[in-house]
Amino acid sequence: MKVAIFFGSQSDTDKMRGAANCLREFGIEFEAYVLSAHRVPEKLEEVLADVEKRGAEVIIAGAGLAAHLPGVIASKTILPVVGVPLNGAIGGLDALYSIVQMPKSIPVATVGIDNSYNAGMLAVQILAVKYPEIKEKLINFRKEMKAKFIADNEKKIEL
Amino acid sequence: MKVAIFFGSQSDTDKMRGAANCLREFGIEFEAYVLSAHRVPEKLEEVLADVEKRGAEVIIAGAGLAAHLPGVIASKTILPVVGVPLNGAIGGLDALYSIVQMPKSIPVATVGIDNSYNAGMLAVQILAVKYPEIKEKLINFRKEMKAKFIADNEKKIEL
Amino acid sequence: MKVAIFFGSQSDTDKMRGAANCLREFGIEFEAYVLSAHRVPEKLEEVLADVEKRGAEVIIAGAGLAAHLPGVIASKTILPVVGVPLNGAIGGLDALYSIVQMPKSIPVATVGIDNSYNAGMLAVQILAVKYPEIKEKLINFRKEMKAKFIADNEKKIEL
Amino acid sequence: MKVAIFFGSQSDTDKMRGAANCLREFGIEFEAYVLSAHRVPEKLEEVLADVEKRGAEVIIAGAGLAAHLPGVIASKTILPVVGVPLNGAIGGLDALYSIVQMPKSIPVATVGIDNSYNAGMLAVQILAVKYPEIKEKLINFRKEMKAKFIADNEKKIEL
Amino acid sequence: MKVAIFFGSQSDTDKMRGAANCLREFGIEFEAYVLSAHRVPEKLEEVLADVEKRGAEVIIAGAGLAAHLPGVIASKTILPVVGVPLNGAIGGLDALYSIVQMPKSIPVATVGIDNSYNAGMLAVQILAVKYPEIKEKLINFRKEMKAKFIADNEKKIEL
Amino acid sequence: MKVAIFFGSQSDTDKMRGAANCLREFGIEFEAYVLSAHRVPEKLEEVLADVEKRGAEVIIAGAGLAAHLPGVIASKTILPVVGVPLNGAIGGLDALYSIVQMPKSIPVATVGIDNSYNAGMLAVQILAVKYPEIKEKLINFRKEMKAKFIADNEKKIEL
Amino acid sequence: MKVAIFFGSQSDTDKMRGAANCLREFGIEFEAYVLSAHRVPEKLEEVLADVEKRGAEVIIAGAGLAAHLPGVIASKTILPVVGVPLNGAIGGLDALYSIVQMPKSIPVATVGIDNSYNAGMLAVQILAVKYPEIKEKLINFRKEMKAKFIADNEKKIEL
Amino acid sequence: MKVAIFFGSQSDTDKMRGAANCLREFGIEFEAYVLSAHRVPEKLEEVLADVEKRGAEVIIAGAGLAAHLPGVIASKTILPVVGVPLNGAIGGLDALYSIVQMPKSIPVATVGIDNSYNAGMLAVQILAVKYPEIKEKLINFRKEMKAKFIADNEKKIEL
Repeated sequence: MKVAIFFGSQSDTDKMRGAANCLREFGIEFEAYVLSAHRVPEKLEEVLADVEKRGAEVIIAGAGLAAHLPGVIASKTILPVVGVPLNGAIGGLDALYSIVQMPKSIPVATVGIDNSYNAGMLAVQILAVKYPEIKEKLINFRKEMKAKFIADNEKKIEL
Repeated sequence: MKVAIFFGSQSDTDKMRGAANCLREFGIEFEAYVLSAHRVPEKLEEVLADVEKRGAEVIIAGAGLAAHLPGVIASKTILPVVGVPLNGAIGGLDALYSIVQMPKSIPVATVGIDNSYNAGMLAVQILAVKYPEIKEKLINFRKEMKAKFIADNEKKIEL
Repeated sequence: MKVAIFFGSQSDTDKMRGAANCLREFGIEFEAYVLSAHRVPEKLEEVLADVEKRGAEVIIAGAGLAAHLPGVIASKTILPVVGVPLNGAIGGLDALYSIVQMPKSIPVATVGIDNSYNAGMLAVQILAVKYPEIKEKLINFRKEMKAKFIADNEKKIEL
Repeated sequence: MKVAIFFGSQSDTDKMRGAANCLREFGIEFEAYVLSAHRVPEKLEEVLADVEKRGAEVIIAGAGLAAHLPGVIASKTILPVVGVPLNGAIGGLDALYSIVQMPKSIPVATVGIDNSYNAGMLAVQILAVKYPEIKEKLINFRKEMKAKFIADNEKKIEL
Repeated sequence: MKVAIFFGSQSDTDKMRGAANCLREFGIEFEAYVLSAHRVPEKLEEVLADVEKRGAEVIIAGAGLAAHLPGVIASKTILPVVGVPLNGAIGGLDALYSIVQMPKSIPVATVGIDNSYNAGMLAVQILAVKYPEIKEKLINFRKEMKAKFIADNEKKIEL
Repeated sequence: MKVAIFFGSQSDTDKMRGAANCLREFGIEFEAYVLSAHRVPEKLEEVLADVEKRGAEVIIAGAGLAAHLPGVIASKTILPVVGVPLNGAIGGLDALYSIVQMPKSIPVATVGIDNSYNAGMLAVQILAVKYPEIKEKLINFRKEMKAKFIADNEKKIEL
Repeated sequence: MKVAIFFGSQSDTDKMRGAANCLREFGIEFEAYVLSAHRVPEKLEEVLADVEKRGAEVIIAGAGLAAHLPGVIASKTILPVVGVPLNGAIGGLDALYSIVQMPKSIPVATVGIDNSYNAGMLAVQILAVKYPEIKEKLINFRKEMKAKFIADNEKKIEL
Repeated sequence: MKVAIFFGSQSDTDKMRGAANCLREFGIEFEAYVLSAHRVPEKLEEVLADVEKRGAEVIIAGAGLAAHLPGVIASKTILPVVGVPLNGAIGGLDALYSIVQMPKSIPVATVGIDNSYNAGMLAVQILAVKYPEIKEKLINFRKEMKAKFIADNEKKIEL
């Protein structure tokens, strides 16, 4: 396992699936856990230690409202933490600000509101720095993305 | 000691003094600590346990930016936690949302941006539920506040 | 009765039920009234005096739009007032700002937008400062919440 | 006296002077009082009754933060209440929303943030509906305003 | 006719009906016109002059988006103009700011987003300054509103 | 003259100079006038007709707060109108929304807050569609801008 | 062809049709392409060069979220670029700010959120500066728009 | 060299120094360039290719206003791109939204407004995934950070 995905409630499962889908496209092993920074802080540390021991190199964490989970995880690990703000109120701005505005020395790599696919992609890019085979896949992914985009949009649109 | 005041950085000292001033007006003992939810999570638990053991009945916590401190404390204690959003960016809205939008079951009693005096007052009001002598002081405080306000503003203003 | 719940319109009943549900879980007696700071200010004072006389120790008040009800109540009682901003427009930000940004000396303990359950919980926490039996229930509630959360989420999720 | 001006703190005096200046330009008598919806609610009713008895036909009320004063006054009088949001935090948006988003049946005639001069002008326009001599002055004011504007800006600007 | 109601598109008819309903409750004659500050500026002046000649003493104007209609009308009449921001995008904040933030000397009496009923009520309050019979009706309206509110909410709610 | 620049107050002169500076760089003749949509609507039409008759092909209009000037001009001319939101309150968001959110059929070409230089540049680009000599200058301007940027930033920075 | 329309995804087709509809009303030839600033930057330059060679004189570009497409196009052409912010999150404010707040020298002529019809109209107005026959059509369009508006709204509304 | 830092203007140098300071603390080689996505797009590709060839494994990019630089770079490289929103207007929200709300497949790892130090730290954390010696330094850095924080704040504060 190279990536651990955390989020605060089973009700967020659908919103976080994008991250899993992205990692599967690259054949990167991951595990996903529902964990809460506020309800089970000790459990959080235990699972975090466990996934680190079993190989996790990047963490993805999604949360809504006063979204502390990504930041609290970031304070307990030196692994890069990718944060996904989930829209639960006021368009997700509460979650965005709660995740991105971290204090000095404890950053969270924040992606767009409800955009868990991009959290997966950022994890892939981080792993590609280390693993040449992932780097190669990523280069191919981009090539194919472009080729597909061009094929799909080769002709002018009837508007 | 009845109230413990926490905040994330010595640079917030001036902004948090209002809470102390309010508690002093009521003769309520308090202690203040600089603690960080992200930098020293273990220390946070230790100090929190210590102040609870030594009598703290209400917690006041101030923080800015992605202000997790009040919420993280609230997840580790059953004492009422009063949160003060401190303006460090975008007018303090990041701190306000990070403190007030807590998930189900772990509330933070949020007061206005940079308004630590009101955090002190809320602590007084909570303690007044239990302690008749504080209740009496609070009733007198309100009476005097009104009397003083009326005395100061008895006459129409030259505008 | 230990808690009085106020809100401005019968149409808010569903949004405020969370507070009642929380108090029932703890066996705390409460009463709920529809009252308006703007339409029946005298009635407000009368009911407020009545519930105080009959034992209310914490007030919960929910309101939307220019949400004055919690602040107006706070100006007429020394009991702690817990305010619930209700989303009626612009995501509830009008109600949030109208409740949380109270002037010096008259705080409202504000919880998240539409999060009346947390208002109930904050009332429980305030009462637990005084009543050992509520404190015990609260400690157990947290333990069970954690146990249930862990039981529900013991295994990694299929994402 | 035809207009009563209320605001919550002597520190707002300078911001509210615009209203007085406007009324003086039209020779309309007014009185100004510092009053607080939260600190001295009874005093508010007393002064309000007094100014109504002595001839007030329009009320101007300025307030910042959770700006309840204009709305609370509006709930206690049938006179038109003109509200001035004062910038004390987040650019004055808290005050604007707290004043303009009043519930059904109790409106406040809201003007721009910190724009107390326009509150005075709105009072003039309301009085001009009733008093022909004020109407005439207002018509002349507009004419002179235009003439002055044109005189000041007759020629193209060196930019 | 005492009140003229203007708005920018027939599609706003339902949102503006509240103003008409309020005026009907008070037996105040009004007329309503769809007019656009941007599409038919000359027509606007013509209709405005006509309704003034035929007795209009207060103008109500509703608009959405870059809501210029109330302000443009205010620049062409000395009658009090009550502005209703209509939600067409971003929660109606564009319309609110476009209406309330008028420059010095040309105010618009702004009410809440989509709250045209309150625009009607403000017109009633302005007319009540001049007409004793409207004032009397308004006093009765408030009394009945209170009586009805109290009757509807006499007992505590089952929450 | 090819471009007319309008703004609402002499106090905006410094903020609008950027537009003039840009036009001067391209040798494009312009004239600038202080005009108000609200204070002198008739004068606005007169000056607008005059500058059109004397050759104006693009209009630039800057305004703050409830910034109606660009939209009102756009309703009275078929020339392209470039709008500059000026920051007078809440960071200029009121002016931005008041200018950019124009209704169907009457657009304003909006540029960034306080960015009058870009309004000048947009006028240049519009004129370059028609005038080959301006097009040529614009192509050279871009080339020189790039060359200068590269010359200024050729080497890595000491950070 | 005189106008090229670009947008980032086939899913935006319906939102961008307004621009096409407007251009068709004026008989102005256009072509529309789905292109992405981020996914196929090279393709973007190729298509842009092609449409310029084949006569495009104005570019319309629509995009949502971090809407870079209009600004990136503007950096690669001297043609006027009209930007349409598309609402994909937080009411479209992310797209609006990403399009309108361009740096010095590279403006985008921004229209309202989701208002692609106005982008078409702005293109028409820009072309009318050069082409007398489009100018004539535009003058007639305005006349007919007014006539139709007046015919549709000649009588007062039953409200 | 392991990290390349890009930003759009020499005037941003002071705001971006935090990233350099952080990298220096860890002995990580970096280079910094002023580059503009809009003014010199070709130059951007050239420098980007060069730094990749010479070993860059993480990119840091800072920008203000319609901050396209980080996203445009992310579209041209598979390296992880860390984006720093710089406050140039409206509190930096324009830059934040322009950087964080990237479309599917092209993420930017966004840190807090003006918080370039955290961009450096995120780069360190990403490199630590690959380089054991950086990982070790990072573990020590955290330990020392905690030790220093505790030493600085060992005692309760005089408030």
